[in-house]
Amino acid sequence: MRDDSSFLRPIITLTSDFGLDDFYVAEMKAVLLAGCRDARLIDVTHAVPRHDPLAGSIVLERAISVFPEGTVHVAVVDPGVGTSRRLLIARTRRQRIICPDNGLITWTQRRHGLDEVHELLWRPDAPSRTFHGRDIMAPAAAMIASGTAIEAIARSVNDPVLLPVRLAEVGAAVATVIHIDRFGNAMTNCPADHLHPPPRAFVVKGHDMGELRRTYDDVRPGEALALIGSGGLLEIAVREGSAAERLGVRVGDMVEIRS
Amino acid sequence: MRDDSSFLRPIITLTSDFGLDDFYVAEMKAVLLAGCRDARLIDVTHAVPRHDPLAGSIVLERAISVFPEGTVHVAVVDPGVGTSRRLLIARTRRQRIICPDNGLITWTQRRHGLDEVHELLWRPDAPSRTFHGRDIMAPAAAMIASGTAIEAIARSVNDPVLLPVRLAEVGAAVATVIHIDRFGNAMTNCPADHLHPPPRAFVVKGHDMGELRRTYDDVRPGEALALIGSGGLLEIAVREGSAAERLGVRVGDMVEIRS
Amino acid sequence: MRDDSSFLRPIITLTSDFGLDDFYVAEMKAVLLAGCRDARLIDVTHAVPRHDPLAGSIVLERAISVFPEGTVHVAVVDPGVGTSRRLLIARTRRQRIICPDNGLITWTQRRHGLDEVHELLWRPDAPSRTFHGRDIMAPAAAMIASGTAIEAIARSVNDPVLLPVRLAEVGAAVATVIHIDRFGNAMTNCPADHLHPPPRAFVVKGHDMGELRRTYDDVRPGEALALIGSGGLLEIAVREGSAAERLGVRVGDMVEIRS
Repeated sequence: MRDDSSFLRPIITLTSDFGLDDFYVAEMKAVLLAGCRDARLIDVTHAVPRHDPLAGSIVLERAISVFPEGTVHVAVVDPGVGTSRRLLIARTRRQRIICPDNGLITWTQRRHGLDEVHELLWRPDAPSRTFHGRDIMAPAAAMIASGTAIEAIARSVNDPVLLPVRLAEVGAAVATVIHIDRFGNAMTNCPADHLHPPPRAFVVKGHDMGELRRTYDDVRPGEALALIGSGGLLEIAVREGSAAERLGVRVGDMVEIRS
Repeated sequence: MRDDSSFLRPIITLTSDFGLDDFYVAEMKAVLLAGCRDARLIDVTHAVPRHDPLAGSIVLERAISVFPEGTVHVAVVDPGVGTSRRLLIARTRRQRIICPDNGLITWTQRRHGLDEVHELLWRPDAPSRTFHGRDIMAPAAAMIASGTAIEAIARSVNDPVLLPVRLAEVGAAVATVIHIDRFGNAMTNCPADHLHPPPRAFVVKGHDMGELRRTYDDVRPGEALALIGSGGLLEIAVREGSAAERLGVRVGDMVEIRS
Repeated sequence: MRDDSSFLRPIITLTSDFGLDDFYVAEMKAVLLAGCRDARLIDVTHAVPRHDPLAGSIVLERAISVFPEGTVHVAVVDPGVGTSRRLLIARTRRQRIICPDNGLITWTQRRHGLDEVHELLWRPDAPSRTFHGRDIMAPAAAMIASGTAIEAIARSVNDPVLLPVRLAEVGAAVATVIHIDRFGNAMTNCPADHLHPPPRAFVVKGHDMGELRRTYDDVRPGEALALIGSGGLLEIAVREGSAAERLGVRVGDMVEIRS
């Protein structure tokens, strides 16, 4: 850090299903900068599968887990825009999340809990009917990043929508694939310390990968393995290859855990 | 805003057909930062269809409509690089646009008018023959963002190239699709207040969508509708689906407006 | 520049094969900002072909060639993560590069030479096994950008891994295609001033393009040509078209240089 004022520049992240081919992301950034001119704007991803809050939820949690205290996250996967669905402001790990109340915060809730949840009540004079990310969520995020008190724009609620994805139980016999990354690695819902006692083997699509490995280097190139991924969850991978292609594994598939 | 100096950091946006797989965008940003080290750099999109100034024109206007006063926009869709085509600096809404004179400013001109147009005369000592975005437009944008007077680097002109896309007339019987977004929504050239008197029905590719709707919620999931999009233009959409896929609608297609 | 302190904000670029669909890029940025809160973060590209350090090497050199002194570049194409491969800090053009020791710095070395190479010795307490970009390289980059002395975290080495790609000799009879860009232009390994004496003709895949052209405008639309690209290297292009599509040219193909 060079000086105190730079330290205070707020970080705002953006997660959406807008893609990068259109102008929607830039429109949100224009509004964020108009409301909080010194904000640091960081894209998480805009490639969340279209209209898929559950997939967005997995991505968003990764951002929550690494960004520093004070970060404000705006997440817009909003098939219900224009309906009466609520907008939420959630708080965890001293960070704030602004998103539609459609389950986008589910995975964050599962892994970190939520300290507070508010419904955003603030509305601009004439928001569009189809782009509340730009017209409501972005201005609200800028307000919060600029120090506006949550209570001035929102009311406490205790019933956020949560989707049916959960952490695997301790000692569970199966884990579920929740994300496939660009490399074809299959991330599951099973935290490292829930693998107890140490399993004898992991089986995916009839493919027995043996026991948990520590690193890719523990198997030969092209061979499948189970290891703990960078997010602390059980992951199925292929060294220098793609588990998605090699094993045909997809989101929702089961990983059998044999103890 | 935390302090006055941060308020003054200039915003420079980038729009191009470079894609994100190569190094061209980063090269432009390096030059922009070298010339204006405290600039805020915001990508609009780099996915403009290759060598298509008309498509770029639609995207650029969206940026003009939302960014704050003082923003400098650099738009590079430049199939004529290396020919004698001019470079322009246009001014509207207290923002500046730097781009090749090939029609990229058309849609901005149609929707907002242009307060001034200049031809950029400044040239570096030895620009490349193939990348004037980096070698001429980016340095010029940095100069303008840093406060260089336009007159010092450009001369006034009044004949910018404009492409054959226009706003639909008030009361027009047809609108034209000018952009398809990632969600498959079809944006047209018809502003909300040109739909007068209120049409009885909108018909696209033989599909009658009935009257103008206020929001997606006015139809059932999977159903097509006509509504006013977030850019203030008539849009054809499918609730929780894709009008492009469902109706087969493409850029250039007609929307019949029945009154 | 508005003031001295803004001038001093360090620039950190990111190059990787992570793609933009996952959360890995954002995780690295979170760590970079945590360690160097006022850094300027610039993406070079995250679309380096998966696990291809040679392709990454070509991209990285382009960044080195344009960014200002003091820039820190983090490049993560790291199929060997979790093995004993070293991490490097290289210095050239008063910039620093942090990357795995797998040849990523090859093309930078070929074109600019390396002033110093160090092996990064610093390690965090408990890095993940699969994401050293986030857990080791990003924190180290933030340290360097914040002014940490290289000697405090690294030791000098003189044997970085270099891949078998080289500049074409002066007067060479062939050049090799090393990169195809989004426009289908084929960049080669032959610098402009190595084309000596001026060749009579360039031949690719049996297609004779005649002598070196100065600009696209020297041929008709749709016609192939050889010219010097924006990176100072011989390039094969098609005016307003794609050499990759038109000529079928690929990375690794030969360009015959007839003198």
